[in-house]
Amino acid sequence: MSEGVEWAVHCCLTLAWLGDERPVPAARLAAGYELPTAYLNKQLQALVRAGVLESVAGAKGGFRLARPLEKITLMDVVAAVEGPEDAFQCQEIRRRGMGAGAPEGRYRAPCAVSTAMRRAELAWRRALAAQTLAEIQAAAERQAPDLGRGVRRWYGQDG
Amino acid sequence: MSEGVEWAVHCCLTLAWLGDERPVPAARLAAGYELPTAYLNKQLQALVRAGVLESVAGAKGGFRLARPLEKITLMDVVAAVEGPEDAFQCQEIRRRGMGAGAPEGRYRAPCAVSTAMRRAELAWRRALAAQTLAEIQAAAERQAPDLGRGVRRWYGQDG
Repeated sequence: MSEGVEWAVHCCLTLAWLGDERPVPAARLAAGYELPTAYLNKQLQALVRAGVLESVAGAKGGFRLARPLEKITLMDVVAAVEGPEDAFQCQEIRRRGMGAGAPEGRYRAPCAVSTAMRRAELAWRRALAAQTLAEIQAAAERQAPDLGRGVRRWYGQDG
Repeated sequence: MSEGVEWAVHCCLTLAWLGDERPVPAARLAAGYELPTAYLNKQLQALVRAGVLESVAGAKGGFRLARPLEKITLMDVVAAVEGPEDAFQCQEIRRRGMGAGAPEGRYRAPCAVSTAMRRAELAWRRALAAQTLAEIQAAAERQAPDLGRGVRRWYGQDG
């Protein structure tokens, strides 16, 4: 899995702490975590395509949340950044070699290996979909109640 | 995830269908699914290190199951082939940029993003560990009851 997932989740949390009055440019979000702007921008665009973020054009443009953290699950972010494909990609090797001469219809049902692997990926996806970014934000704030204030101060929205 | 997981599971099933009288060389297992021998051999060695397969040296050597399919889970195979690391690797970006000046102790607890991602990977691992290769073999045989006979015929152990 790419580092993009970690970046994307943290950026969503940052945007939530900043509120949605002012969109934040990719370069500012990147600076907040010392990330490469161009590569982060790719992830942010993916989040826009997934409807997680909104992109605002223009000199004062940037990114903001398209919906509240309560309505964004980890699954939304992982699917946006990593794509919808399963990690396990069945190559149907059962059809090769000794399986090549099998009768028509032998391969109508999905491979039992693939089915078992997909079952596990479904469990993973369900666990991702069961967790919202709001819950992650709440957990982070339980560890450090002044996190949001720190973010706003760093972005110059405080004081 | 690499193709090696699919290869490894199929090879374990093949070895189970062949029984453990005669070890099977990597080249023969590779031919059974038209796989590259050298790369498959790497996966088979990983399964040996994990205690899933046994390797027998010598002219009549090769691989056989180290234990029955009932005692091999998908988790065993995936861990052997892919390694024990989580797919999500937390890079602790929370400590960078705006997080760099945080007070001592702020980062004692694991990052809430990482914790949430790990929760999902645990669900995946639990689902892998809950499925044995014996169950996958049984599912494959429900689709094609003569699978084992076909494998033995191809490997010249029948008739």
